[in-house]
Amino acid sequence: MPRHIGPSADDVAVMLKTVGASSLDELMKQTVPDEIRLSAPMGIGEGWTEEEVLAHLRRLASQNQVMTSLIGQGYYGTVLPAVIQRNILENPAWYTAYTPYQPEISQGRLEALLNFQTMITELTGLDIANASLLDEATAAAEAMSLAHRVARSKASAFFVDAECHPQTLTVLKTRAEPLGITIVVGNPATDLVASDIFGALFQYPGTSGVLKDLRPFADAVHQAGGIVAVAADLLALTLLTSPGELGADIAVGSSQRFGVPMGFGGPHAAYIAVRDAHKRNLPGRLVGVSVDSAGNPAYRLALQTREQHIRREKATSNICTAQVLLAIIAGMYGVYHGPEGLKAIARRVHGLTATLAAGLKALGATVETSHFFDTITVQAGAAAQDILVKARAAGINLRDAGGGRLGISLDETTTAEIVYAVWTVFEKTAGQVESMARGLSAAGSALPDTLNRTSAFMTQPVFRSCQSETDMLRYLRRLADKDLALDRTMIPLGSCTMKLNATVEMLPITWPGFSAIHPFAPAEQTTGYQALFDDLERWLCAVSGYDAVSFQPNSGAQGEYAGLLAISAYHRHRGQENRNICLIPASAHGTNPASAQMAGMKVVVVKCDAGGNIDLADMREKVQVHAADLSVFMITYPSTHGVFEQNIREICDLVHEAGGQVYVDGANMNAQVGLARPGDYGGDVSHFNLHKTFCIPHGGGGPGMGPIGVKAHLKDFLPGNPAATETSLAVSAAPFGSASILPISWAYIRLMGDAGLTRATQVAVLNANYIVSRLSEVYPVLYRGSHNRVAHECILDLRPIKDQTGVSVDDIAKRLVDYGFHAPTVSFPVAGTFMIEPTESEGKAELDRFCDAMLGIRAEIGAVEAGRLSAEQSALRHAPHTSDVVTADEWDRAYPRRQGAFPEGVAFTTKYWPPVGRIDNAHGDRNLVCTCPDISEYME
Amino acid sequence: MPRHIGPSADDVAVMLKTVGASSLDELMKQTVPDEIRLSAPMGIGEGWTEEEVLAHLRRLASQNQVMTSLIGQGYYGTVLPAVIQRNILENPAWYTAYTPYQPEISQGRLEALLNFQTMITELTGLDIANASLLDEATAAAEAMSLAHRVARSKASAFFVDAECHPQTLTVLKTRAEPLGITIVVGNPATDLVASDIFGALFQYPGTSGVLKDLRPFADAVHQAGGIVAVAADLLALTLLTSPGELGADIAVGSSQRFGVPMGFGGPHAAYIAVRDAHKRNLPGRLVGVSVDSAGNPAYRLALQTREQHIRREKATSNICTAQVLLAIIAGMYGVYHGPEGLKAIARRVHGLTATLAAGLKALGATVETSHFFDTITVQAGAAAQDILVKARAAGINLRDAGGGRLGISLDETTTAEIVYAVWTVFEKTAGQVESMARGLSAAGSALPDTLNRTSAFMTQPVFRSCQSETDMLRYLRRLADKDLALDRTMIPLGSCTMKLNATVEMLPITWPGFSAIHPFAPAEQTTGYQALFDDLERWLCAVSGYDAVSFQPNSGAQGEYAGLLAISAYHRHRGQENRNICLIPASAHGTNPASAQMAGMKVVVVKCDAGGNIDLADMREKVQVHAADLSVFMITYPSTHGVFEQNIREICDLVHEAGGQVYVDGANMNAQVGLARPGDYGGDVSHFNLHKTFCIPHGGGGPGMGPIGVKAHLKDFLPGNPAATETSLAVSAAPFGSASILPISWAYIRLMGDAGLTRATQVAVLNANYIVSRLSEVYPVLYRGSHNRVAHECILDLRPIKDQTGVSVDDIAKRLVDYGFHAPTVSFPVAGTFMIEPTESEGKAELDRFCDAMLGIRAEIGAVEAGRLSAEQSALRHAPHTSDVVTADEWDRAYPRRQGAFPEGVAFTTKYWPPVGRIDNAHGDRNLVCTCPDISEYME
Repeated sequence: MPRHIGPSADDVAVMLKTVGASSLDELMKQTVPDEIRLSAPMGIGEGWTEEEVLAHLRRLASQNQVMTSLIGQGYYGTVLPAVIQRNILENPAWYTAYTPYQPEISQGRLEALLNFQTMITELTGLDIANASLLDEATAAAEAMSLAHRVARSKASAFFVDAECHPQTLTVLKTRAEPLGITIVVGNPATDLVASDIFGALFQYPGTSGVLKDLRPFADAVHQAGGIVAVAADLLALTLLTSPGELGADIAVGSSQRFGVPMGFGGPHAAYIAVRDAHKRNLPGRLVGVSVDSAGNPAYRLALQTREQHIRREKATSNICTAQVLLAIIAGMYGVYHGPEGLKAIARRVHGLTATLAAGLKALGATVETSHFFDTITVQAGAAAQDILVKARAAGINLRDAGGGRLGISLDETTTAEIVYAVWTVFEKTAGQVESMARGLSAAGSALPDTLNRTSAFMTQPVFRSCQSETDMLRYLRRLADKDLALDRTMIPLGSCTMKLNATVEMLPITWPGFSAIHPFAPAEQTTGYQALFDDLERWLCAVSGYDAVSFQPNSGAQGEYAGLLAISAYHRHRGQENRNICLIPASAHGTNPASAQMAGMKVVVVKCDAGGNIDLADMREKVQVHAADLSVFMITYPSTHGVFEQNIREICDLVHEAGGQVYVDGANMNAQVGLARPGDYGGDVSHFNLHKTFCIPHGGGGPGMGPIGVKAHLKDFLPGNPAATETSLAVSAAPFGSASILPISWAYIRLMGDAGLTRATQVAVLNANYIVSRLSEVYPVLYRGSHNRVAHECILDLRPIKDQTGVSVDDIAKRLVDYGFHAPTVSFPVAGTFMIEPTESEGKAELDRFCDAMLGIRAEIGAVEAGRLSAEQSALRHAPHTSDVVTADEWDRAYPRRQGAFPEGVAFTTKYWPPVGRIDNAHGDRNLVCTCPDISEYME
Repeated sequence: MPRHIGPSADDVAVMLKTVGASSLDELMKQTVPDEIRLSAPMGIGEGWTEEEVLAHLRRLASQNQVMTSLIGQGYYGTVLPAVIQRNILENPAWYTAYTPYQPEISQGRLEALLNFQTMITELTGLDIANASLLDEATAAAEAMSLAHRVARSKASAFFVDAECHPQTLTVLKTRAEPLGITIVVGNPATDLVASDIFGALFQYPGTSGVLKDLRPFADAVHQAGGIVAVAADLLALTLLTSPGELGADIAVGSSQRFGVPMGFGGPHAAYIAVRDAHKRNLPGRLVGVSVDSAGNPAYRLALQTREQHIRREKATSNICTAQVLLAIIAGMYGVYHGPEGLKAIARRVHGLTATLAAGLKALGATVETSHFFDTITVQAGAAAQDILVKARAAGINLRDAGGGRLGISLDETTTAEIVYAVWTVFEKTAGQVESMARGLSAAGSALPDTLNRTSAFMTQPVFRSCQSETDMLRYLRRLADKDLALDRTMIPLGSCTMKLNATVEMLPITWPGFSAIHPFAPAEQTTGYQALFDDLERWLCAVSGYDAVSFQPNSGAQGEYAGLLAISAYHRHRGQENRNICLIPASAHGTNPASAQMAGMKVVVVKCDAGGNIDLADMREKVQVHAADLSVFMITYPSTHGVFEQNIREICDLVHEAGGQVYVDGANMNAQVGLARPGDYGGDVSHFNLHKTFCIPHGGGGPGMGPIGVKAHLKDFLPGNPAATETSLAVSAAPFGSASILPISWAYIRLMGDAGLTRATQVAVLNANYIVSRLSEVYPVLYRGSHNRVAHECILDLRPIKDQTGVSVDDIAKRLVDYGFHAPTVSFPVAGTFMIEPTESEGKAELDRFCDAMLGIRAEIGAVEAGRLSAEQSALRHAPHTSDVVTADEWDRAYPRRQGAFPEGVAFTTKYWPPVGRIDNAHGDRNLVCTCPDISEYME
C-alpha cells in the first residue's frame, strides 16, 4: 500500500490540518454525497505482497501454452530486440510518459513517432502517415470513414475484398451499420461494381496468402470517383510494390510484426497512411515538424488533433488514443534493422515459405496459393482436423480457415526445424519427409514478377545510424532524456490520472506466457488468460456495481462506442429502435458526442449551471422533450469540472423514468473506487480507463484500455469474437482487446485489496484539496462541490490573470517547464484554465514543490501586474528556457539571466533542460512536414 | 556481430585508409608478432542469434531446480523490490558505469555508495565502513590482515570462533598460510587464549544459529592488545546489540540478504566497518565527502584507494574491485524499507523461526539452539539423511551440518506455509503436525535479553525519504542522471575495456533459474549451471590455449592470487618450496606485486626499456641471478603500454628454462582473442577479466570476475569447494565465485562465435590505431610496437604540455567532461599521460566525436601556449563547468561564457551537465567524512 500512496501517515495528518478536516473519513463525508456513499467493502479482500502477486501471475502464465504460431491472420511471431525491450518497453522514462501535448518536454517520443510515420510512408509509398491507430481492423474502419468523407462518388456502399481478415470484416460491418454504409464483400475480379461504391478495401497479401496485382481494381474504383484503401503487411512491403505505387489512396495495417509481441491480441500499433490530398482528413494524432522560439526545428502534434478538439458536431471518428509505445517500438525496430536488415528478414521468411510450399506439394498436399509472401493455404479436405490436432501435438498451431482449408504463415522466428516439423505433420507415411527433403532443391521466389518492389525506401539517415547495439542504446537514452515522464516529476494532468505504474505490475507483460500467445489460439491453450479475465471481471464488477465486463475496447473512446452500441441494441431488441437521442452535458469530454455520432445517435446538449453542475431545469426539459426517443444520457462522474454533483442519483432516475439508459463515463473512477459505485447510483454502462485508475501506463499516448461494465440487462449486447463468422458486433480486431496489458490492472487490484484501493481514492481527494488549500488564494478555483470541496482534481481559473496582465495560460504552462514540471491540463474543460489532478501517488514533498512553483510564477505575474515589466518582456513569455538561451554570451532581457532557467527552488544539480524553446504550432500547421527531415537540416 | 561491433563495414574501409592499412588482416600482421599469430579457428563455431542464445539459456535455467532454501550459512532468500531490480540491476545507466575515479561524473553512484556505507556503520555500530568487499569470507580475511597490521599484540596466531561459516574458515586458512599466520579454531568460551593471538573473529549469530554475548571475549582480547572482529548478519543487527557496542574493532559480513539474489554464490557485496582509529588501514574503496570548486559538497573516493595506487612494497591486500552494483542495491533496499521496515522484516523472520522451533520441539525434535535469530540447529541423529531427502521432496533444502545436525535458516521469503511444511517433514506420524499446530501458542522472542538492540540506527533523512515507489523511482533516476555511463558516451579507459554489455546477455541473470539458487544446494539440483560452466570452461580454453579453468576468483586481482597460489603449490609438490621469487616488469599493474606479496612471494622488478618493452638484458640478468628460487614471471600481454612486444615467446622460454612459471595477466585479452593465445606462446596461468573482454558490465566498480585458466600441470592446484572440510585452498566464499553473472560471458561468446570474436579483436586494434592516426600529430604517442602500430590502446604523452603551458593531465581530463566524455585512464601506467582504449564497440562517429574533442582541447591549450591567457585563467583549469557557473548573472572570466560549457561541437540539446565542479580531493582526505551528511548541510 505505501508503494502506491505518496503521503506517509504523518504527511496525511499534516495535510488534513491544512485542508481543515479532522480525518480522511470526514473529508470523504464532506466531499462525496451521502446518498451514494458505499457502506460495505467491495469484496476484493486483502492486498497481497509483490511476491504473492508475482507467484500467482507466474502460475497463470504457465497455464497459457506457448506454441509455435503459424496461424497468421494478421498476427505473427517476431523478435523484439533485447535492447529495445529493456530500454523502451521496460523503461519508465518511456512507458510512464504522457501524450505529447506539451511538445517542449516530449521531443524524444515525438522524434520516435516521426521515425514511425516516416517508416510507414516509405514502406506504403504514400505521402503521410499518422502516429498510429488502435489495430488493423479499426484502422480499416477509419479508412472506410475517410473514404466516405472524401470520395467524389456519392454511392453508399463500400466494397471489401473477401481476402480481408475476418476480424477486419466484422469490425467494418459493425462500424458501417450506424453510419448507413452498406458493406459489399466479394472477389474484386468478379464482384467489384465500381459505380455502386464510394470506396474499396483490399488486403495485400490476402488473408489466404494470395498476392494479386491490385492496379486494375484501383483504376476501376478511381474512374468511378471512389477511394482505394489497401490493408498491407509491412514486412511484405519490403519486397513488394508498395500500395501507393499500385494506386492506393489509403493504406492501413498492423506494425505488430515489427518487434511487438502478439500478446494474445494486443496492444499493437496499427498504421494509416494517405496521399497528400487527404492529409487534413487523416484521423488520429499526427506528429509534425515546426520551429521553436529560436527558429530551431522542433516536433509537435500537428493539426491539433487532440481529444478535447474532436469536433462535436459531425464527428466521424472518436479516435484520440494512439498506440504510442508500440508505434515507437515498431519504429525503433525499423531504425535498428534498417532497410537492408528488414529486407533480409523478409527474404528469409519468404524463402522458408517457398520451401515449405514446395515440400508440401512434394508430399502430395494441395497448396492453393501459387503467389505468396509468407502465407499459404492448403486444402486438406476431410484430413484437416486430424492435421490440426497432429500439429498441436508437435507444438504448432495452424489456422483453421474452414472448409478443410488450413492457413500456414511463417515469420521472423520460423526456423528450418519448424518447416520440417510442418512437413512431418502432413506426411502420410513415416520417413516420407526425410526422403522428400533429400530430393528437394532450393525453392525460388513465389512473388509475382509484376509485384517485385523496385523503389528504394527508408533512405533517411536515421535508418542507417543505429546498427550496433551501442549506437541504438545511446540513441534511446538521448531521446528519453529529452522528455519528462513520471520517473522525474509529477504530471498533474486533470482528467488523466497520471499515477504510479508500479514496476511489479509491469514485470509480467514481457513473460512469454502472456506475450507469445496468438489471439486466435485454441481456447484450451489460454486457460491462464481466461482465469485472469475472470478475476478482473469479478473485481471490476465489485468496484463498479456492474454485472458483466467486456475487455474488447482498446481505449476509453472505444469503450464509449461499444457501450452505446450495446444500448442501441438493447432498445432495438425491445422494439424501440426509434430511441436515438443522446443527452450530453456541455461539460463532457469531446469523445462523448463523437462516440454517439459514430453509434448513429443524435446528440442533444444539456446545459451546465454557473457552478459547473448539470442545469437540472434544462435536464428535466430535455428529458421531457425527447422522452419518446431518448436512448441514453452520458455523464462523467465526478464531473469533468472536478466535483461530486449532489443530485447524481436524481438525474439517473429521471433518465430511467423516461425509458433511457445511463452511460457513466469512467474517466474519473479514481475519485470513487471504494467510495461509490456507478452501478449503484444509476449507471447502466461505464467504461473503465485501465490506463488511468488501474495503473496501465500511458506509454506516451497509448496503449490504453477501455473495457466496459454493464448491468445484467445489457450483457447480451456486448461485443463478440470478431473473428467468428456468427459475430455481428465487434469493436476491436482481437476478442479481448489489448489482453497482454491486463495483468497490470490485475496486479494493481490484487496488491491493493479493498483497503488499499479505498485509501488510494481518499488520498487522491486529499491531495487535490491540499492543492486547493495552498493555491486558491492567488489562483481562484472555478468549481467546488459541497463544503467547498473538490473531488480528485480542481480547475484553476487563469482568465482574470490573462485579462489583467496579458500573461496567458500557455505562458504559465511553459514556465512550469522551467521548474521541471509537466503542465496540468490546459484549457480543458474550460478555456483559459488549468485542471490539476495530483493523484494519490504524489507525496507531500512533490505537491509542495509544485505549489511553490505555482506561487513563484504568481509572483512573476505580480511583477507584470505591477508594471515592472511587460508580459512580452517577462520570463513567462520566454519560457521555457533552453540552456542555449541562458548560456549565450550576450544577455539583454528585462529579467536576470539566472531567473530564466533557475527560478527560486530549482536546483542546478537536478535541473531538467528542455531541448527546445516554445514551439510555433501555427508555423508547423502551415508548413506540414510529417516525416523525418533530411540530415542537412537537423545536424545538431 | 554488428550488435557488438561499432564501425560498419563501410566505416572500417574508411578507417583502414586513415591508418594506412589495406585490410584488417594486414593491420593484424603489422601489429601482432608473426610467431605467435593463431592460424586456425579457435573451435567455438558459428555465432548464434539472440533467440537461439536465450532459448538455450532458458533450457539451462530450467535444469536448475529452484527450491525453498533454508540452508542459510550466509546465503538467504530475499525480495529484491521490483523498482530496484528494473531501475538499477536492469538499467544500463547503472550497470554500464565505471568505477567512480572521475568523481565529477559519478556523483549518483557515489551518493548511493555513501548510503551503503552509512547503513553499514549504523547497523554495526562502528565509525566507518568501506564501499564493499568481494564476499564475507574474503572480508574476514581482510579483517585478519588489518588486525595483523594494527594490533599492539605481536603474537602470530589468529583465533577463529568455531561458529564461523566453514567457507570463511577455509578462506582464512588459505590466506593465513603464506603470511605466516597461524589459525586457531575453537570455542571462545573454552579455547580462547588471548595472550597467544593478535586478534579474533566471531560470528554473530553463529553459523549454527546460536547467539552469544561477545563482550567477555572482546574484553579478553583487548586486554591482551588484540583486535576483535565480528562477522555479523545485517538483518539480525536491526534487533541485536551492534558489534560496536559489544566491543568489536572490526565488523564484516555480507549484505546479500538486503535484496540481492543468492545467485548460486554471487555476486554480493560484503562489508567491512572499523573503529575510527583504523580508518586509514581500511582496505578497498571508500567514498567520502569533500567540496567542489564552488565550495559545494561533493562525493569522491577518499584516500586514493585505487588499483594503480596499491603500494607495491609491503602490500597486504590486493583488493581493488568492490561490488559496487550490489552494494548499491543493498543500500537502496535499506533506503526503501527504512529502519522501521527493516525491523519489521527482522521481527517477522524471527517470529517465524521461534514458532518453527517451538513446533519442532513439540514434535519431539532436539533443537540445539535456545537463543537464536533466524537459524536453528536440530540434532536429528540417524534420521538426518531421511529428513533431508523428505525435505527435498517437499521442495525444501535444509543444511546438512554433519554428524546428524541439520541447520534451518528462515528469511524474508519464508511463509507460514513453509514453516508448516518443515514441521511436516519432521513429523513421525501423519496428522501429528495438524494436532500440534492447533495446540501451539504464539512463540515469544528467542533473542537473549542482554542482546536486545536499544540504540537507534539509520536516522539519516535519506532512510526516510523514499517510502513510496514513486519517490524511490525518482530518486534512482535523479542519481542515474548525474552519472556518465556507456549508455551516453564512450568510456575510453585504457586497460579497462569498456565495451558493450549487450542487453540480451543481461536478460538471464534475473531469471529465478539462475538467481534463486543457493551456492551449497545439492549438485543434482544445479545441472544447468554445471553445463554452463562446462561450456564456458571449454570456450575459455579454446580462446586462451589453456587446459582447465577455475571460476572461483571474483576479480582479476583474486585471479592473480589464486594463480600464484597454484604455482606455489606446484613448486611445493615438486619439492621446490624454495622457489619464491616473483619477477614483475616495472610497467605492471599494482595488483601484480600486491598479489605476489599475499601469496608469500618476494617481488623483483624487471626494468623496461625506452620503448616501454621489457629490458631483455635486465630480464636475462634477473632470471639468471634468481634462477634457483624463481617461482614465477608475471607479464601483461599485450603490455600495459599498449603494444605487442615482439619477443614474448623468447621471454617465456627464458623463464621456463630457469624452472619458473609464467603468469600472463589477462587484462589485455581483448587485444588477442582469435589472434594469439597465451597458452600457446608460453603462459602457464592467466586470469580472464570477464568484466573486460567478456562483457560482464563494470557495474560502477563491480561485480567483476577473474577466473583463471591453467595448463594441465597446474590443474590439481586450483581452488576447491570452500565449504568442504577437505579443501585446503579456496579464494572465495562460493565454489564458483559470482556464478550468476557467468551467463553474460557465456552468451557473448556464443553470440559471437569464432568469426565474431576475432573480428571484435581486429576492430578493437583498428579503433586504437585510428585514434593514434587522428591525434598523434598534436599529442605524441608514448609507445608503439612494430610498424609503428599500437595494440588495442595507446598512451598519449601529456607531460610536454604540462611543462610548456602548465595545463595538467587533470585539466584535460576534466575538460573532457564539458564535452560529455568520461576521461581516459589518467596517469597509468605512466604519470602525466592518458591511456586510451576505445574497444571495438565504438563506431566511427563516436571515435570522431572524441578525437574532435581532444583536438578542440589542444586548440585551447594552444591559446595558453600563445600567451593569450594563463592556464589558471583558462576554461581548462575551470573545468568541468556546471550549469550553476555558466548561468550566473555575472561573468568575469578570461574566456567567453559560452565556451565554458559549450566548446565547439557540443550540442545544447544533448548536453551532459556535471552536477559538481572540480572536486578538491585533499580537502576530503584531510576532513574524512564517509557517511551521509546531515540534511541541513545538503539541501539542494
